[in-house]
Amino acid sequence: MAKFQKHVFICVNERDPSDPKGCCAAKGSPEVAAAFKRKLHERGLKRVVRANKAMCLDQCAQGVTIVVYPEATWYGHVTLDDVDEIIEQHIVGGRPVERLVIPPEKLTGIDAVPDGSRSR
Amino acid sequence: MAKFQKHVFICVNERDPSDPKGCCAAKGSPEVAAAFKRKLHERGLKRVVRANKAMCLDQCAQGVTIVVYPEATWYGHVTLDDVDEIIEQHIVGGRPVERLVIPPEKLTGIDAVPDGSRSR
Repeated sequence: MAKFQKHVFICVNERDPSDPKGCCAAKGSPEVAAAFKRKLHERGLKRVVRANKAMCLDQCAQGVTIVVYPEATWYGHVTLDDVDEIIEQHIVGGRPVERLVIPPEKLTGIDAVPDGSRSR
Repeated sequence: MAKFQKHVFICVNERDPSDPKGCCAAKGSPEVAAAFKRKLHERGLKRVVRANKAMCLDQCAQGVTIVVYPEATWYGHVTLDDVDEIIEQHIVGGRPVERLVIPPEKLTGIDAVPDGSRSR
């Protein structure tokens, strides 16, 4: 099936400043999303790799949070300074940027269907 | 890596009504996203499968547009009436709902890196 080779989702969810969860938007995620989009286009990857703004990715404590599909690589605490490295090393080079990968024990999400009806 | 078993992104992008591209929001995508979230929770799949609102998925002509990762199955023209079928047949049962799958020739996106530096 034709598709984007990689699909990068950047959380731009915004919560009320009084919310103890915090939010990615307050940590600069709109600027990170814009940088991904601009730099991917400059790199000639428009429509090959899509930088996509997303609402809450449910990893608020790790914001700015990004997930790269189809490999499901999760990055946390991403800043503008990290965008070039993620693009060059991971998106183009295929090697995740390990120092930014969210440790499995800090990710919300359950990698199994509890009732046993696995679909993968 | 711990993660969601499946991650369902529903486009909720909103464009000005005068934009000839149209948008998923005007076709009812916020209600479709809410239905996915509610029904997945009712099905006991909270934190196993995440329904995630996304900004523009770049398939405006096919809206309401949804993409399911990690398998990268793209659905178009999704309505509230389709949500149960997608959850039961695909998310739980593992068989995509073919009648809703966007034909490859109608998808934007290029499934190869033009300069040959493939990363998958």
